[in-house]
Amino acid sequence: MPITFKIEAISGAARSGRLITPHGEVETPVFMPVGTLASVKGVSQDLLEELGVQILLGNTYHLYLRPGVEQIRRLGGLHRFMAWPRAILTDSGGFQVFSLNDLRKVSEEGVTFRSHLDGSSHFFSPENATEAQIGLGADIIMAFDECTEYPAERERVRQSMELTLRWAERSKKYFEQHRHEVPWNANHVGPDVPVWAGQRQVAGSAEIRSAGQVGTSFDSLRSGSAPTQTQSLFAIVQGGMDTALRKESVERTIEIGFSGYSIGGLSVGEPRALTQEIVAATVLHLPADKPRYLMGVGTPQEIAEYANLGIDMMDCVLPTRAARHGLLFTSEGKIPIKQARYAGDEGPLDPNCGCRVCRRYSRAYLRHLYASNEVLAQVLNTVHNLSFYLDTMRAVRHSIGLG
Amino acid sequence: MPITFKIEAISGAARSGRLITPHGEVETPVFMPVGTLASVKGVSQDLLEELGVQILLGNTYHLYLRPGVEQIRRLGGLHRFMAWPRAILTDSGGFQVFSLNDLRKVSEEGVTFRSHLDGSSHFFSPENATEAQIGLGADIIMAFDECTEYPAERERVRQSMELTLRWAERSKKYFEQHRHEVPWNANHVGPDVPVWAGQRQVAGSAEIRSAGQVGTSFDSLRSGSAPTQTQSLFAIVQGGMDTALRKESVERTIEIGFSGYSIGGLSVGEPRALTQEIVAATVLHLPADKPRYLMGVGTPQEIAEYANLGIDMMDCVLPTRAARHGLLFTSEGKIPIKQARYAGDEGPLDPNCGCRVCRRYSRAYLRHLYASNEVLAQVLNTVHNLSFYLDTMRAVRHSIGLG
Repeated sequence: MPITFKIEAISGAARSGRLITPHGEVETPVFMPVGTLASVKGVSQDLLEELGVQILLGNTYHLYLRPGVEQIRRLGGLHRFMAWPRAILTDSGGFQVFSLNDLRKVSEEGVTFRSHLDGSSHFFSPENATEAQIGLGADIIMAFDECTEYPAERERVRQSMELTLRWAERSKKYFEQHRHEVPWNANHVGPDVPVWAGQRQVAGSAEIRSAGQVGTSFDSLRSGSAPTQTQSLFAIVQGGMDTALRKESVERTIEIGFSGYSIGGLSVGEPRALTQEIVAATVLHLPADKPRYLMGVGTPQEIAEYANLGIDMMDCVLPTRAARHGLLFTSEGKIPIKQARYAGDEGPLDPNCGCRVCRRYSRAYLRHLYASNEVLAQVLNTVHNLSFYLDTMRAVRHSIGLG
Repeated sequence: MPITFKIEAISGAARSGRLITPHGEVETPVFMPVGTLASVKGVSQDLLEELGVQILLGNTYHLYLRPGVEQIRRLGGLHRFMAWPRAILTDSGGFQVFSLNDLRKVSEEGVTFRSHLDGSSHFFSPENATEAQIGLGADIIMAFDECTEYPAERERVRQSMELTLRWAERSKKYFEQHRHEVPWNANHVGPDVPVWAGQRQVAGSAEIRSAGQVGTSFDSLRSGSAPTQTQSLFAIVQGGMDTALRKESVERTIEIGFSGYSIGGLSVGEPRALTQEIVAATVLHLPADKPRYLMGVGTPQEIAEYANLGIDMMDCVLPTRAARHGLLFTSEGKIPIKQARYAGDEGPLDPNCGCRVCRRYSRAYLRHLYASNEVLAQVLNTVHNLSFYLDTMRAVRHSIGLG
């Protein structure tokens, strides 16, 4: 059984609901933190659970290069590999490859590209990008698409959209023939017993074990899901900045038929007002009973706005990347923590935030960590920014629930 | 009231006990993780508490440069600045300045040195190094010493030892005249109310606050200690690799009189067997009723051995620095996690360890994080190595307790 999507409340165009995946439930609208290389940079999975993260995004392109799909598949898939028992979504690699610019060459068959790590040559097609995502074993995977560049002529946008439609069909065909190969299905027939079960001896003294018996346990993470569960395939709507083409892209993608629909090809350099216009125009045509995923957005304000337009899922590197650059989102606006004016500021980062960072540390301390290039700066900044994004979405869900 | 030291069990030369500081009790023998710049690199204070860390070491030299002593003093001292309510010890800066080699010049008055950050010129004397440590406000501070280089002629070692003795006397004199200036004493007369008490509004919704109400709270961290409490000054025994000079250094330092005694000038390039010989010879002459602190050691095996020789306190960058280089200490020996042989290893890092890392992640995942240069590698590796060191000391204390 793949995902189930239940809408529980509607308020205007917005809806709140529940996405039931093989690895747990996800309350929507949801913001998905980005864990590019099977890690949300600097934050341990324990903390992500504590923050209330219900679904993570992994990047197929990056994982394909390191540690490799076959490695992760052999180790039972991404969930088991990264010890994350909750839901995961992987992108198709299409956007990442698109970002390589000069390092890629697109044909009907697929995309030839060079690794940003060592320049080695690789090829992604709808078939092998889907194969890779089956090997990684996320709960939700994406059809391989071409992300149309901006700006682009209408004819170029149409051709690109048509290519994405043909690739969506090929992705679906491959997926339907191979979905049973997902590692937590195929590799786990019968009772699921960890390799070293019974061999493992944890030091018996209560004193020695006192250092925090909290969080998800090693063994429980290695027990797989029921073999009846499978992944779900979403397709990506393209069509550039042309609302007619967006509408056509939606309609023809729905004809092929997917478990959910993503809006791709945005946040590629166009003005923010145009992004919003295209999202608003596109979302109207998406089926009401399927999850709608807007890829690669946005600021805290924007994710709330898109949720209000009827978007159910979003992801963005902004909270994690901004954190690494010392840019912190708070209820009082953005705080560039490196500025000298925070050096003596004894107040909490955000007096309205209840996260571990705001409950414990002062702005002066966070400023010192950042200015001194301490790794803890990245850790704490990321925890706070994620907390702020997740709180924003909790408030949005709450407000939709109240109508 | 400064520290109190209670010996609770003796086994051979080893003893276990309790060091009662103005910021909590410390079970000895204790390993003190190094938090150079008011942070144990990559690990949040919450996790340090969970690991059972009872005392941290801060480096005066580094904190003097960034963010500056005056800044920390104004913010209430190190404990409040870094939101660490438990005990802290600062070194005198002597060893750090010694490590600068060509950038320093020693005179009777003190040491002129150049900052490793920007080459600016600075001067440390027994008086101003003590002043700096009073400003930082650790529970235990160190007399300013000259760390004798290795190898050195006997006459040079004697002269250096004599200088350290004169400096110890000057440090003590300054300390006795200024101990009341410690920020958590002088700045906190009467009821201690955080600056923004009553103004702070944490979002009221239980849902919004659900992200982990654990650990030490912001406000409680900002309540100071009773104004009767003061710091304690330890002196550092020198004398190079000469047991007679070490004995003389101990005796003449005791004559001056301190709350505790450190063995300095070791781990400076001499063979490990010689270090052990000097420790064993020196510890014999140290007073039984005062804490004995061996500076800058060692491997897990060595810290256990030194505890068995009667050492009560140790610090070392090894567990944290090795973690950053992917070298992990386990009950099965050292594991260089970057090696390809761990890429497919589904087992826990150390099957006998109960830390968060060993309970959750596989060697394969830790190897991937390290090989991919993910920040989480440093975080998790450091948590495990510290856990291993702290478990080692717990086991040592337990075994001393059992005789």
